[in-house]
Amino acid sequence: MPANRDFDRLRVVLVATRNPLNLGASARAMSNFGFMQLRVVNPYEVAFREARSAVGAAELLKNAEEFGSVAEAVADCRLVVGTTAVRHRELQHRMHALPEAARQIRRQLQAGDVALLFGSEKTGLSNESLSHCQWLLRIPTREEHPSMNLGQAVAVCLYEIARGKPGARISAQSKTASAGSLERITQEMLAALRVSGYLKAEQGAASDAKVRRMVRRLGLNADDAEVLLGMLKQMLWKMRRSERED
Amino acid sequence: MPANRDFDRLRVVLVATRNPLNLGASARAMSNFGFMQLRVVNPYEVAFREARSAVGAAELLKNAEEFGSVAEAVADCRLVVGTTAVRHRELQHRMHALPEAARQIRRQLQAGDVALLFGSEKTGLSNESLSHCQWLLRIPTREEHPSMNLGQAVAVCLYEIARGKPGARISAQSKTASAGSLERITQEMLAALRVSGYLKAEQGAASDAKVRRMVRRLGLNADDAEVLLGMLKQMLWKMRRSERED
Repeated sequence: MPANRDFDRLRVVLVATRNPLNLGASARAMSNFGFMQLRVVNPYEVAFREARSAVGAAELLKNAEEFGSVAEAVADCRLVVGTTAVRHRELQHRMHALPEAARQIRRQLQAGDVALLFGSEKTGLSNESLSHCQWLLRIPTREEHPSMNLGQAVAVCLYEIARGKPGARISAQSKTASAGSLERITQEMLAALRVSGYLKAEQGAASDAKVRRMVRRLGLNADDAEVLLGMLKQMLWKMRRSERED
Repeated sequence: MPANRDFDRLRVVLVATRNPLNLGASARAMSNFGFMQLRVVNPYEVAFREARSAVGAAELLKNAEEFGSVAEAVADCRLVVGTTAVRHRELQHRMHALPEAARQIRRQLQAGDVALLFGSEKTGLSNESLSHCQWLLRIPTREEHPSMNLGQAVAVCLYEIARGKPGARISAQSKTASAGSLERITQEMLAALRVSGYLKAEQGAASDAKVRRMVRRLGLNADDAEVLLGMLKQMLWKMRRSERED
Protein backbone atom coordinates (compact mmCIF):
# COMPACT_ATOMS: atom_id res chain seq x y z
CA MET A 1 0.00 0.00 0.00
CA PRO A 2 1.60 3.30 -1.06
CA ALA A 3 1.70 6.25 1.33
CA ASN A 4 -1.37 8.43 1.03
CA ARG A 5 -1.19 12.13 1.85
CA ASP A 6 -4.94 12.26 2.44
CA PHE A 7 -4.53 9.82 5.33
CA ASP A 8 -2.56 12.44 7.27
CA ARG A 9 -5.78 14.44 7.45
CA LEU A 10 -7.56 11.78 9.50
CA ARG A 11 -7.39 12.27 13.25
CA VAL A 12 -8.19 9.12 15.17
CA VAL A 13 -9.55 10.41 18.47
CA LEU A 14 -9.66 7.99 21.41
CA VAL A 15 -11.83 9.34 24.18
CA ALA A 16 -11.33 8.23 27.81
CA THR A 17 -9.60 4.98 26.91
CA ARG A 18 -8.97 2.87 30.01
CA ASN A 19 -6.91 -0.11 28.88
CA PRO A 20 -3.31 0.38 27.71
CA LEU A 21 -3.61 -2.74 25.55
CA ASN A 22 -6.44 -1.12 23.62
CA LEU A 23 -4.51 2.10 23.20
CA GLY A 24 -1.51 0.14 21.94
CA ALA A 25 -3.61 -2.03 19.64
CA SER A 26 -5.35 1.03 18.19
CA ALA A 27 -1.99 2.68 17.50
CA ARG A 28 -0.69 -0.49 15.88
CA ALA A 29 -3.70 -0.71 13.55
CA MET A 30 -3.27 2.96 12.64
CA SER A 31 0.32 2.30 11.69
CA ASN A 32 -0.65 -0.87 9.75
CA PHE A 33 -3.10 1.07 7.58
CA GLY A 34 -1.09 4.27 7.28
CA PHE A 35 -2.97 6.68 9.55
CA MET A 36 -0.40 8.31 11.81
CA GLN A 37 -2.31 11.12 13.56
CA LEU A 38 -3.54 10.00 16.97
CA ARG A 39 -5.33 12.23 19.43
CA VAL A 40 -6.30 11.17 22.92
CA VAL A 41 -8.86 12.85 25.16
CA ASN A 42 -8.54 12.20 28.89
CA PRO A 43 -7.02 8.75 28.70
CA TYR A 44 -6.38 7.03 31.99
CA GLU A 45 -2.89 8.22 32.84
CA VAL A 46 -1.57 4.71 33.27
CA ALA A 47 -3.12 3.55 30.00
CA PHE A 48 -1.35 6.23 28.06
CA ARG A 49 2.00 5.58 29.71
CA GLU A 50 1.94 1.81 29.43
CA ALA A 51 0.71 1.78 25.86
CA ARG A 52 3.96 3.20 24.55
CA SER A 53 5.29 -0.29 24.00
CA ALA A 54 2.79 -0.96 21.17
CA VAL A 55 4.44 -3.22 18.59
CA GLY A 56 5.76 -1.08 15.75
CA ALA A 57 3.81 2.00 16.80
CA ALA A 58 5.90 3.50 19.59
CA GLU A 59 6.73 6.57 17.50
CA LEU A 60 3.08 7.14 16.64
CA LEU A 61 2.11 6.95 20.31
CA LYS A 62 4.92 9.29 21.30
CA ASN A 63 3.61 11.84 18.80
CA ALA A 64 0.01 11.49 19.96
CA GLU A 65 -1.59 14.78 20.92
CA GLU A 66 -3.38 14.95 24.26
CA PHE A 67 -6.51 17.03 24.85
CA GLY A 68 -8.67 17.83 27.85
CA SER A 69 -11.96 17.78 25.93
CA VAL A 70 -13.52 16.48 22.74
CA ALA A 71 -14.28 20.05 21.70
CA GLU A 72 -10.57 20.92 21.67
CA ALA A 73 -9.56 17.64 20.03
CA VAL A 74 -11.84 18.18 17.03
CA ALA A 75 -11.68 21.98 16.76
CA ASP A 76 -9.66 22.06 13.55
CA CYS A 77 -11.64 19.32 11.75
CA ARG A 78 -14.13 19.80 8.91
CA LEU A 79 -15.98 16.60 9.60
CA VAL A 80 -16.43 14.87 12.96
CA VAL A 81 -17.69 11.29 12.96
CA GLY A 82 -18.55 9.24 16.04
CA THR A 83 -18.43 5.45 16.19
CA THR A 84 -21.08 3.50 18.05
CA ALA A 85 -22.30 -0.05 18.45
CA VAL A 86 -25.85 0.94 19.34
CA ARG A 87 -28.48 3.02 17.70
CA HIS A 88 -28.92 6.39 19.32
CA ARG A 89 -32.40 7.04 17.98
CA GLU A 90 -33.10 9.64 20.61
CA LEU A 91 -30.11 11.71 19.49
CA GLN A 92 -31.44 12.00 15.98
CA HIS A 93 -28.02 11.57 14.53
CA ARG A 94 -27.72 10.32 11.02
CA MET A 95 -26.13 6.89 11.05
CA HIS A 96 -24.10 5.31 8.24
CA ALA A 97 -22.92 1.73 8.01
CA LEU A 98 -19.15 1.55 7.70
CA PRO A 99 -18.78 1.07 3.93
CA GLU A 100 -20.86 4.18 3.15
CA ALA A 101 -19.31 6.11 6.05
CA ALA A 102 -15.81 5.33 4.77
CA ARG A 103 -16.75 6.59 1.31
CA GLN A 104 -17.84 9.91 2.76
CA ILE A 105 -14.77 10.16 5.00
CA ARG A 106 -12.43 9.49 2.05
CA ARG A 107 -14.17 12.18 0.04
CA GLN A 108 -13.84 14.69 2.87
CA LEU A 109 -10.18 13.80 3.44
CA GLN A 110 -9.35 15.18 -0.01
CA ALA A 111 -10.46 18.59 1.17
CA GLY A 112 -9.79 18.85 4.89
CA ASP A 113 -9.27 17.25 8.27
CA VAL A 114 -11.62 14.60 9.58
CA ALA A 115 -11.95 13.37 13.20
CA LEU A 116 -13.03 9.81 13.87
CA LEU A 117 -14.05 9.34 17.50
CA PHE A 118 -13.94 6.13 19.54
CA GLY A 119 -15.33 6.03 23.07
CA SER A 120 -14.25 4.20 26.18
CA GLU A 121 -14.38 0.40 26.41
CA LYS A 122 -17.17 0.32 28.98
CA THR A 123 -19.56 3.01 27.88
CA GLY A 124 -18.62 4.10 24.37
CA LEU A 125 -19.01 7.78 23.52
CA SER A 126 -20.99 9.85 25.98
CA ASN A 127 -23.89 11.98 24.84
CA GLU A 128 -21.66 15.00 25.31
CA SER A 129 -18.99 13.51 23.04
CA LEU A 130 -21.60 12.45 20.49
CA SER A 131 -22.94 15.98 20.40
CA HIS A 132 -19.73 17.08 18.67
CA CYS A 133 -20.31 14.66 15.80
CA GLN A 134 -21.99 15.49 12.50
CA TRP A 135 -23.05 11.91 12.07
CA LEU A 136 -22.38 8.41 13.40
CA LEU A 137 -20.74 5.35 11.99
CA ARG A 138 -21.76 1.79 12.79
CA ILE A 139 -19.82 -1.37 11.93
CA PRO A 140 -22.36 -3.92 10.68
CA THR A 141 -22.36 -6.73 13.24
CA ARG A 142 -24.62 -9.49 14.47
CA GLU A 143 -27.61 -8.04 16.29
CA GLU A 144 -27.06 -10.36 19.26
CA HIS A 145 -23.46 -9.20 19.78
CA PRO A 146 -22.85 -5.72 18.40
CA SER A 147 -20.23 -4.51 20.90
CA MET A 148 -16.73 -4.78 19.50
CA ASN A 149 -13.37 -4.65 21.19
CA LEU A 150 -11.94 -1.12 20.83
CA GLY A 151 -8.71 -2.10 19.07
CA GLN A 152 -10.62 -4.30 16.65
CA ALA A 153 -13.18 -1.60 15.90
CA VAL A 154 -10.36 0.84 15.11
CA ALA A 155 -8.69 -1.75 12.86
CA VAL A 156 -11.88 -2.51 10.94
CA CYS A 157 -12.76 1.18 10.44
CA LEU A 158 -9.29 2.10 9.20
CA TYR A 159 -9.14 -0.98 6.98
CA GLU A 160 -12.37 0.12 5.30
CA ILE A 161 -11.23 3.72 4.86
CA ALA A 162 -7.94 2.53 3.34
CA ARG A 163 -9.73 -0.15 1.31
CA GLY A 164 -11.28 2.23 -1.18
CA LYS A 165 -7.89 3.05 -2.61
CA PRO A 166 -6.48 0.82 -5.29
CA GLY A 167 -2.97 -0.49 -4.89
CA ALA A 168 -3.39 -3.66 -2.89
CA ARG A 169 -0.49 -5.34 -4.50
CA ILE A 170 -0.65 -8.97 -5.41
CA SER A 171 2.50 -10.95 -5.84
CA ALA A 172 3.36 -11.80 -9.41
CA GLN A 173 1.77 -15.07 -10.29
CA SER A 174 4.03 -17.55 -11.92
CA LYS A 175 3.83 -18.02 -15.64
CA THR A 176 1.42 -20.73 -16.71
CA ALA A 177 2.80 -23.80 -18.42
CA SER A 178 2.95 -23.84 -22.21
CA ALA A 179 0.74 -26.15 -24.24
CA GLY A 180 3.84 -28.02 -25.37
CA SER A 181 4.87 -28.64 -21.79
CA LEU A 182 1.35 -29.85 -20.91
CA GLU A 183 1.45 -32.27 -23.81
CA ARG A 184 4.83 -33.66 -22.71
CA ILE A 185 3.31 -34.30 -19.29
CA THR A 186 0.30 -35.92 -20.91
CA GLN A 187 2.46 -38.29 -22.96
CA GLU A 188 4.61 -39.20 -19.99
CA MET A 189 1.54 -39.81 -17.86
CA LEU A 190 -0.10 -41.97 -20.52
CA ALA A 191 3.06 -44.05 -20.77
CA ALA A 192 3.20 -44.39 -16.99
CA LEU A 193 -0.46 -45.38 -16.81
CA ARG A 194 0.03 -48.04 -19.49
CA VAL A 195 3.16 -49.50 -17.94
CA SER A 196 1.51 -49.58 -14.54
CA GLY A 197 -1.52 -51.40 -15.93
CA TYR A 198 -3.91 -48.54 -15.07
CA LEU A 199 -4.66 -48.19 -18.78
CA LYS A 200 -4.87 -51.32 -20.91
CA ALA A 201 -3.23 -51.44 -24.32
CA GLU A 202 -6.60 -51.73 -26.02
CA GLN A 203 -7.88 -48.49 -24.49
CA GLY A 204 -7.14 -45.89 -27.10
CA ALA A 205 -7.95 -42.37 -28.10
CA ALA A 206 -10.87 -41.87 -25.72
CA SER A 207 -8.89 -42.54 -22.56
CA ASP A 208 -5.97 -40.56 -23.93
CA ALA A 209 -8.26 -37.58 -24.33
CA LYS A 210 -9.57 -38.03 -20.80
CA VAL A 211 -6.06 -37.85 -19.36
CA ARG A 212 -5.19 -34.92 -21.62
CA ARG A 213 -8.21 -32.96 -20.39
CA MET A 214 -7.37 -33.71 -16.80
CA VAL A 215 -3.81 -32.45 -17.23
CA ARG A 216 -5.23 -29.21 -18.68
CA ARG A 217 -7.60 -28.81 -15.74
CA LEU A 218 -4.67 -28.78 -13.32
CA GLY A 219 -3.82 -25.19 -14.28
CA LEU A 220 -0.11 -25.91 -13.88
CA ASN A 221 2.39 -23.09 -13.80
CA ALA A 222 5.61 -23.44 -15.78
CA ASP A 223 7.76 -24.43 -12.81
CA ASP A 224 5.35 -27.03 -11.47
CA ALA A 225 5.01 -28.52 -14.96
CA GLU A 226 8.76 -29.01 -15.10
CA VAL A 227 8.77 -30.69 -11.68
CA LEU A 228 5.82 -32.92 -12.48
CA LEU A 229 7.44 -34.05 -15.72
CA GLY A 230 10.56 -35.03 -13.81
CA MET A 231 8.52 -36.97 -11.26
CA LEU A 232 6.69 -38.89 -13.95
CA LYS A 233 9.90 -39.70 -15.83
CA GLN A 234 11.43 -41.12 -12.66
CA MET A 235 8.38 -43.26 -11.85
CA LEU A 236 8.24 -44.47 -15.42
CA TRP A 237 11.91 -45.43 -15.30
CA LYS A 238 11.34 -47.38 -12.10
CA MET A 239 8.31 -49.20 -13.49
CA ARG A 240 10.08 -50.07 -16.74
CA ARG A 241 12.91 -51.56 -14.77
CA SER A 242 10.41 -53.93 -13.25
CA GLU A 243 9.10 -54.73 -16.73
CA ARG A 244 12.55 -55.80 -17.92
CA GLU A 245 12.95 -57.97 -14.89
CA ASP A 246 9.68 -59.81 -15.40
CA MET B 1 -26.90 -8.14 10.04
CA PRO B 2 -29.12 -11.20 9.57
CA ALA B 3 -27.84 -14.69 10.37
CA ASN B 4 -26.20 -16.33 7.40
CA ARG B 5 -26.19 -20.11 7.08
CA ASP B 6 -23.14 -20.03 4.81
CA PHE B 7 -21.13 -18.52 7.66
CA ASP B 8 -21.42 -21.79 9.59
CA ARG B 9 -19.24 -23.38 6.93
CA LEU B 10 -16.28 -21.17 7.74
CA ARG B 11 -13.80 -22.68 10.16
CA VAL B 12 -11.53 -20.09 11.72
CA VAL B 13 -8.41 -22.09 12.56
CA LEU B 14 -5.99 -20.58 15.07
CA VAL B 15 -2.65 -22.38 14.98
CA ALA B 16 -0.34 -22.36 18.02
CA THR B 17 -1.83 -19.21 19.54
CA ARG B 18 0.16 -18.13 22.60
CA ASN B 19 -1.73 -15.22 24.13
CA PRO B 20 -5.11 -15.80 25.79
CA LEU B 21 -6.09 -12.18 25.02
CA ASN B 22 -5.66 -12.85 21.31
CA LEU B 23 -7.67 -16.04 21.50
CA GLY B 24 -10.42 -14.20 23.33
CA ALA B 25 -10.33 -11.23 20.95
CA SER B 26 -10.49 -13.54 17.94
CA ALA B 27 -13.51 -15.32 19.40
CA ARG B 28 -15.19 -12.01 20.13
CA ALA B 29 -14.70 -10.78 16.55
CA MET B 30 -16.07 -14.09 15.27
CA SER B 31 -19.17 -13.62 17.36
CA ASN B 32 -19.51 -9.97 16.27
CA PHE B 33 -19.54 -10.92 12.61
CA GLY B 34 -21.51 -14.15 12.93
CA PHE B 35 -18.88 -16.83 12.42
CA MET B 36 -19.25 -19.34 15.25
CA GLN B 37 -17.01 -22.27 14.26
CA LEU B 38 -13.62 -21.99 15.93
CA ARG B 39 -10.88 -24.60 15.67
CA VAL B 40 -7.62 -24.42 17.54
CA VAL B 41 -4.44 -26.35 16.75
CA ASN B 42 -1.99 -26.80 19.60
CA PRO B 43 -2.81 -23.62 21.51
CA TYR B 44 -0.77 -22.93 24.60
CA GLU B 45 -2.75 -24.71 27.28
CA VAL B 46 -2.94 -21.64 29.45
CA ALA B 47 -4.00 -19.45 26.52
CA PHE B 48 -6.91 -21.71 25.77
CA ARG B 49 -8.01 -21.96 29.37
CA GLU B 50 -7.73 -18.27 30.21
CA ALA B 51 -9.37 -17.12 27.01
CA ARG B 52 -12.73 -18.51 28.04
CA SER B 53 -13.64 -15.19 29.59
CA ALA B 54 -13.81 -13.45 26.19
CA VAL B 55 -16.52 -10.79 26.29
CA GLY B 56 -19.69 -12.18 24.76
CA ALA B 57 -17.95 -15.17 23.23
CA ALA B 58 -17.62 -17.64 26.10
CA GLU B 59 -20.02 -20.09 24.47
CA LEU B 60 -18.16 -19.95 21.17
CA LEU B 61 -14.85 -20.66 22.92
CA LYS B 62 -16.37 -23.50 24.92
CA ASN B 63 -17.51 -25.10 21.67
CA ALA B 64 -14.12 -24.65 19.96
CA GLU B 65 -12.72 -27.89 18.56
CA GLU B 66 -9.13 -28.73 19.43
CA PHE B 67 -6.77 -30.54 17.03
CA GLY B 68 -3.24 -31.88 17.22
CA SER B 69 -2.29 -30.93 13.66
CA VAL B 70 -3.29 -28.62 10.83
CA ALA B 71 -3.91 -31.66 8.62
CA GLU B 72 -6.62 -32.91 10.99
CA ALA B 73 -8.11 -29.46 11.53
CA VAL B 74 -8.70 -28.87 7.81
CA ALA B 75 -9.39 -32.44 6.64
CA ASP B 76 -13.11 -31.86 5.95
CA CYS B 77 -12.65 -28.50 4.20
CA ARG B 78 -12.90 -27.88 0.46
CA LEU B 79 -10.82 -24.74 0.52
CA VAL B 80 -7.94 -24.00 2.87
CA VAL B 81 -6.66 -20.42 2.98
CA GLY B 82 -3.66 -19.20 4.95
CA THR B 83 -3.21 -15.64 6.17
CA THR B 84 0.18 -13.99 6.04
CA ALA B 85 1.71 -10.56 6.42
CA VAL B 86 4.73 -11.29 4.25
CA ARG B 87 5.20 -12.44 0.72
CA HIS B 88 6.27 -16.04 0.47
CA ARG B 89 7.60 -15.79 -3.07
CA GLU B 90 9.77 -18.83 -2.66
CA LEU B 91 6.73 -20.93 -1.75
CA GLN B 92 4.97 -20.16 -5.03
CA HIS B 93 1.62 -19.81 -3.35
CA ARG B 94 -0.93 -17.69 -5.10
CA MET B 95 -1.65 -14.62 -3.01
CA HIS B 96 -4.87 -12.62 -2.97
CA ALA B 97 -5.46 -9.29 -1.29
CA LEU B 98 -8.30 -9.50 1.23
CA PRO B 99 -11.16 -8.05 -0.86
CA GLU B 100 -10.63 -10.56 -3.69
CA ALA B 101 -9.85 -13.38 -1.23
CA ALA B 102 -13.11 -12.72 0.63
CA ARG B 103 -15.04 -12.85 -2.64
CA GLN B 104 -13.63 -16.28 -3.39
CA ILE B 105 -14.21 -17.52 0.16
CA ARG B 106 -17.84 -16.36 0.10
CA ARG B 107 -18.39 -18.15 -3.17
CA GLN B 108 -16.89 -21.37 -1.84
CA LEU B 109 -18.93 -21.14 1.38
CA GLN B 110 -22.09 -21.68 -0.66
CA ALA B 111 -20.85 -25.11 -1.64
CA GLY B 112 -18.69 -26.43 1.18
CA ASP B 113 -16.52 -25.87 4.21
CA VAL B 114 -13.67 -23.38 4.13
CA ALA B 115 -10.77 -23.19 6.59
CA LEU B 116 -9.14 -19.82 7.27
CA LEU B 117 -5.80 -20.25 9.06
CA PHE B 118 -4.09 -17.76 11.35
CA GLY B 119 -0.61 -18.49 12.71
CA SER B 120 1.03 -17.73 16.02
CA GLU B 121 1.69 -14.16 17.11
CA LYS B 122 5.48 -14.41 16.87
CA THR B 123 6.06 -16.38 13.72
CA GLY B 124 2.82 -16.60 11.78
CA LEU B 125 2.08 -19.84 9.94
CA SER B 126 4.99 -22.26 9.56
CA ASN B 127 5.97 -23.59 6.17
CA GLU B 128 4.42 -26.90 7.17
CA SER B 129 1.12 -25.19 8.01
CA LEU B 130 1.26 -23.14 4.81
CA SER B 131 1.77 -26.29 2.78
CA HIS B 132 -1.81 -27.31 3.62
CA CYS B 133 -3.18 -24.12 2.04
CA GLN B 134 -4.42 -23.78 -1.53
CA TRP B 135 -3.61 -20.09 -1.54
CA LEU B 136 -2.77 -17.22 0.76
CA LEU B 137 -4.57 -14.09 1.86
CA ARG B 138 -2.90 -10.78 2.64
CA ILE B 139 -4.49 -7.79 4.31
CA PRO B 140 -3.30 -4.73 2.39
CA THR B 141 -1.17 -2.76 4.84
CA ARG B 142 1.61 -0.21 4.81
CA GLU B 143 4.81 -1.75 3.51
CA GLU B 144 6.78 -0.42 6.48
CA HIS B 145 4.49 -2.08 9.03
CA PRO B 146 2.69 -5.08 7.59
CA SER B 147 2.48 -7.23 10.73
CA MET B 148 -0.93 -7.00 12.39
CA ASN B 149 -2.09 -7.99 15.83
CA LEU B 150 -3.76 -11.42 15.63
CA GLY B 151 -7.14 -10.41 17.02
CA GLN B 152 -7.27 -7.39 14.72
CA ALA B 153 -6.32 -9.46 11.68
CA VAL B 154 -9.13 -11.90 12.46
CA ALA B 155 -11.59 -9.02 12.88
CA VAL B 156 -10.63 -7.37 9.59
CA CYS B 157 -10.79 -10.63 7.63
CA LEU B 158 -14.19 -11.59 9.01
CA TYR B 159 -15.53 -8.08 8.51
CA GLU B 160 -14.58 -8.26 4.84
CA ILE B 161 -16.06 -11.74 4.36
CA ALA B 162 -19.30 -10.62 5.98
CA ARG B 163 -19.24 -7.32 4.09
CA GLY B 164 -19.91 -8.51 0.58
CA LYS B 165 -22.92 -9.89 -1.07
CA PRO B 166 -22.82 -13.58 -1.81
CA GLY B 167 -21.37 -14.23 -5.25
CA ALA B 168 -22.55 -16.38 -8.10
CA ARG B 169 -23.30 -19.96 -7.16
CA ILE B 170 -20.71 -22.56 -7.95
CA SER B 171 -21.94 -25.30 -10.24
CA ALA B 172 -22.10 -28.73 -8.64
CA GLN B 173 -19.78 -30.31 -11.18
CA SER B 174 -16.82 -28.13 -10.20
CA LYS B 175 -16.91 -29.20 -6.55
CA THR B 176 -13.36 -28.95 -5.33
CA ALA B 177 -11.51 -31.76 -3.62
CA SER B 178 -11.52 -31.83 0.18
CA ALA B 179 -8.33 -31.14 2.12
CA GLY B 180 -8.44 -34.75 3.34
CA SER B 181 -8.49 -36.02 -0.23
CA LEU B 182 -5.61 -33.71 -1.19
CA GLU B 183 -3.61 -35.03 1.73
CA ARG B 184 -4.22 -38.64 0.66
CA ILE B 185 -2.88 -37.73 -2.79
CA THR B 186 0.10 -36.05 -1.18
CA GLN B 187 0.92 -39.11 0.90
CA GLU B 188 0.54 -41.45 -2.07
CA MET B 189 2.71 -39.20 -4.23
CA LEU B 190 5.40 -38.97 -1.55
CA ALA B 191 5.46 -42.75 -1.28
CA ALA B 192 5.70 -43.05 -5.07
CA LEU B 193 8.50 -40.50 -5.25
CA ARG B 194 10.47 -42.32 -2.54
CA VAL B 195 10.01 -45.75 -4.10
CA SER B 196 10.99 -44.39 -7.51
CA GLY B 197 14.13 -42.82 -6.09
CA TYR B 198 13.00 -39.26 -7.00
CA LEU B 199 13.11 -38.42 -3.29
CA LYS B 200 15.85 -39.92 -1.17
CA ALA B 201 15.08 -41.36 2.24
CA GLU B 202 17.14 -38.64 3.92
CA GLN B 203 15.06 -35.83 2.40
CA GLY B 204 12.50 -35.01 5.01
CA ALA B 205 9.95 -32.40 6.00
CA ALA B 206 11.10 -29.70 3.57
CA SER B 207 10.61 -31.77 0.45
CA ASP B 208 7.37 -33.18 1.85
CA ALA B 209 6.07 -29.63 2.23
CA LYS B 210 7.16 -28.82 -1.33
CA VAL B 211 5.13 -31.71 -2.73
CA ARG B 212 2.19 -30.85 -0.48
CA ARG B 213 2.15 -27.28 -1.77
CA MET B 214 2.34 -28.43 -5.36
CA VAL B 215 -0.65 -30.73 -4.87
CA ARG B 216 -2.63 -27.80 -3.42
CA ARG B 217 -1.72 -25.59 -6.37
CA LEU B 218 -3.29 -28.06 -8.80
CA GLY B 219 -6.79 -26.87 -7.87
CA LEU B 220 -8.16 -30.40 -8.26
CA ASN B 221 -11.87 -30.98 -8.35
CA ALA B 222 -13.31 -33.89 -6.36
CA ASP B 223 -13.59 -36.23 -9.36
CA ASP B 224 -10.10 -35.58 -10.68
CA ALA B 225 -8.70 -36.07 -7.19
CA GLU B 226 -10.29 -39.50 -7.06
CA VAL B 227 -8.86 -40.41 -10.47
CA LEU B 228 -5.40 -39.11 -9.64
CA LEU B 229 -5.32 -41.07 -6.40
CA GLY B 230 -6.17 -44.24 -8.31
CA MET B 231 -3.43 -43.56 -10.84
CA LEU B 232 -0.82 -43.05 -8.15
CA LYS B 233 -1.87 -46.18 -6.27
CA GLN B 234 -1.49 -48.22 -9.42
CA MET B 235 1.95 -46.80 -10.23
CA LEU B 236 3.05 -47.33 -6.65
CA TRP B 237 1.89 -50.93 -6.76
CA LYS B 238 3.86 -51.48 -9.95
CA MET B 239 7.02 -49.90 -8.57
CA ARG B 240 6.78 -51.86 -5.33
CA ARG B 241 6.54 -55.05 -7.33
CA SER B 242 9.87 -54.19 -8.91
CA GLU B 243 11.24 -53.56 -5.40
CA ARG B 244 10.31 -57.03 -4.30
CA GLU B 245 11.91 -58.49 -7.39
CA ASP B 246 15.25 -56.74 -6.86
